[in-house]
Amino acid sequence: MESESGCEMGDIRVLEIKESVFADNDKRAEELRAELKEKGVFLLNLMSSPGSGKTTTLLRTIEALKDEFKIGVMEADIDSDVDARVIAESGVKSIQLHTGGMCHLDAEMTRQGVEGLEVGDVELAILENVGNLVCPAEFDTGASKNAMILSVPEGHDKPLKYPLMFQICDVVLINKIDVLPYFDFDMELVEQYVHKRNPDARVIPICAKTGEGIDVWAQWLRNEIANWRG
Amino acid sequence: MESESGCEMGDIRVLEIKESVFADNDKRAEELRAELKEKGVFLLNLMSSPGSGKTTTLLRTIEALKDEFKIGVMEADIDSDVDARVIAESGVKSIQLHTGGMCHLDAEMTRQGVEGLEVGDVELAILENVGNLVCPAEFDTGASKNAMILSVPEGHDKPLKYPLMFQICDVVLINKIDVLPYFDFDMELVEQYVHKRNPDARVIPICAKTGEGIDVWAQWLRNEIANWRG
Repeated sequence: MESESGCEMGDIRVLEIKESVFADNDKRAEELRAELKEKGVFLLNLMSSPGSGKTTTLLRTIEALKDEFKIGVMEADIDSDVDARVIAESGVKSIQLHTGGMCHLDAEMTRQGVEGLEVGDVELAILENVGNLVCPAEFDTGASKNAMILSVPEGHDKPLKYPLMFQICDVVLINKIDVLPYFDFDMELVEQYVHKRNPDARVIPICAKTGEGIDVWAQWLRNEIANWRG
Repeated sequence: MESESGCEMGDIRVLEIKESVFADNDKRAEELRAELKEKGVFLLNLMSSPGSGKTTTLLRTIEALKDEFKIGVMEADIDSDVDARVIAESGVKSIQLHTGGMCHLDAEMTRQGVEGLEVGDVELAILENVGNLVCPAEFDTGASKNAMILSVPEGHDKPLKYPLMFQICDVVLINKIDVLPYFDFDMELVEQYVHKRNPDARVIPICAKTGEGIDVWAQWLRNEIANWRG
């Protein structure tokens, strides 16, 4: 046991997140964003449905950017440490956040994660949010940018059905493009639907499994970090 | 406008669900279950991630069972009426439930849907819950049985990550088995993981797109309805 709410499971640090008691999440998110800015930590909030490939995409992102930025990863999950073990093997600083059944992270819960990760010299912190297209969209985590992954097998109609998620994301990665031939997925239509929700959102097709398109995504992230640093 | 909270959108009835104010959901779920039993309405609660194929599976289920049972469908969604339009074309009684951003249905919200559907002579009512593996699992809807769909592209590790959903389901349909060759999905492992959460859960591989396995699923449902009728 490291503390009342943390423990080591093998080589993985696990933090049991406590439910927030603060009503004004937007205010707390702004505070966290300002603090991280001061510390030079760019926080990316990565969201998606269960099984759309967040962890594999994250591994590719680490591979592409780990020589340029000191990276730290927070893996939020209801339970299990499957993803955190995979990330830990990539050699970056990482922590598993257990939400104890909670379906999203808000700014205060994210702050607990940031403190647990001990950001120190981290320049790019990535929060892998709970796999869910509904609740995580409702809470500003204090992240610098919001990214989401929609995978080809989920269908191109998702921006119609989960409007808020697509509205709040700065970038939408369309993952698993290697299986496009086996699914009725219309790439032009999905772009139209995404832009209906958020005209400024960047849409990037990728295949995390093969690495296709990861260079474009890494470049987007590189530019965003440069702009944010100003 | 049909009522304060309902309207017609073309040929689709849309009901705006009101948030529940009742604390004791379990009690209200038991009451709804008892009432539906008396009316002879078997209520199936169908859950899954976004894009796992709930609507296509539902269409196949209707096709297989519509000559045996009078079927009614409630399509719950945050927004849009994409699915309800598709279901309406299959000729069964259907209604679109808009949750207004809410990530699940509880028993009282389900009751609003049942009343909106005007179950009357319906024998099999199916609730297509919001696409989400977290929140819908936490609320008893009053359904006779809980079913969920896990699709092959989502991965076989999902019972490890979303324990409650798998624990409360009586049957788990493994959908999109036609794409098994293109994904690292272990059918034996997923059965093990499901049974770790719920040893009594039935696991049925299907392909809603081609119809494979639908006969097994329809037979399961037929048996459950017969047992329930006693």
